Amino acid sequence: MTAFSDTFEIKTGGKGTYEITEQVARVVSLSRILTGTATVFVQHTSASLIVFENADRSARVDLEAYLDRLVPEGEDYFTHTIEGGDDSTSHIKMVLTRCSEVIPVAQGRMQLGTWQGIFLFEHRHAPHRRSVVVTVLGD
Amino acid sequence: MTAFSDTFEIKTGGKGTYEITEQVARVVSLSRILTGTATVFVQHTSASLIVFENADRSARVDLEAYLDRLVPEGEDYFTHTIEGGDDSTSHIKMVLTRCSEVIPVAQGRMQLGTWQGIFLFEHRHAPHRRSVVVTVLGD
Amino acid sequence: MTAFSDTFEIKTGGKGTYEITEQVARVVSLSRILTGTATVFVQHTSASLIVFENADRSARVDLEAYLDRLVPEGEDYFTHTIEGGDDSTSHIKMVLTRCSEVIPVAQGRMQLGTWQGIFLFEHRHAPHRRSVVVTVLGD
Repeated sequence: MTAFSDTFEIKTGGKGTYEITEQVARVVSLSRILTGTATVFVQHTSASLIVFENADRSARVDLEAYLDRLVPEGEDYFTHTIEGGDDSTSHIKMVLTRCSEVIPVAQGRMQLGTWQGIFLFEHRHAPHRRSVVVTVLGD
Repeated sequence: MTAFSDTFEIKTGGKGTYEITEQVARVVSLSRILTGTATVFVQHTSASLIVFENADRSARVDLEAYLDRLVPEGEDYFTHTIEGGDDSTSHIKMVLTRCSEVIPVAQGRMQLGTWQGIFLFEHRHAPHRRSVVVTVLGD
Repeated sequence: MTAFSDTFEIKTGGKGTYEITEQVARVVSLSRILTGTATVFVQHTSASLIVFENADRSARVDLEAYLDRLVPEGEDYFTHTIEGGDDSTSHIKMVLTRCSEVIPVAQGRMQLGTWQGIFLFEHRHAPHRRSVVVTVLGD
């Protein structure tokens, strides 16, 4: 059994979803682990990780529009606004999605379903550099 | 330390929650791992996994009714509707819940709390076959 | 490779977020594992776990206010009310957040980002004792 860890950076262009499936797959391949799990973790509180449909871009367009309506900026009860109108909304969107995903590994490859991809979800308007840690555990 | 992985299928009868605690427990038992974790992963983008109260069916009735109101079908801004009114809503409900759960294992058994069960959450109206991967890691 | 598991209890004073980063870090340190993952799991269906911004208390104030609005008590379609108005809402809030978090460990320490802390999220009005299981896997 082995534990293998690597970190990579994603430069985002502001709000939206950015596919990182290939970068994660590369770490799994480097680990040479055949059976186990890959844990993906984003070290931020205003960006999140999702496993989502990666075939048709329109699914992500709808998700992003939905979340903007579910967590609108400028609610008058928000107090955490020092960094702007997207400050509290970014943290809340992160909580409603998540900061880690655990994906099974078998025969040395992630066992994602046919339509599943891994995405970094940037919630801030401004571009950011985001750190993603991948830890592979197994035999 | 060992890694053990197995996959099973669930046939759903359409929208709703389906308890899979026993099927997951069987894989944990087969693994003969005493201390570690069980990662449960659903390989789909329109069904999800939750750990939820399993004593009183009414809790799940309320959850399902709540999510239908939170993510209503037929929003006029939805564009991802090629498979019907439940297409984008299913993906969004999956993101608001999750596709993996990690449960601790001790003395060879999952350490679920008294009222916790593991459920597959089908979001499509039509019946589907859903694949669930269980990976047990530990000593 | 080793698997190490420990459980601790948190006494909550009712609804709100309670930081548990130090208690989790203590288990990681006890495990003497250098590279791997720490899985944190709450054994309850009306309390949850989140990784959240821990620098400025106002971010949590906004999150708590937001969730109270998103999942209001007293909806007339709720049927699971035997334990009071916060019964179904607590379960639903747990599902919209989560009951487990997996955090990477490197050089013997959790790899949390600068602003990330781990919080137990109590959803019931009344004070409760909550059990948290930490399982550390790795080399």
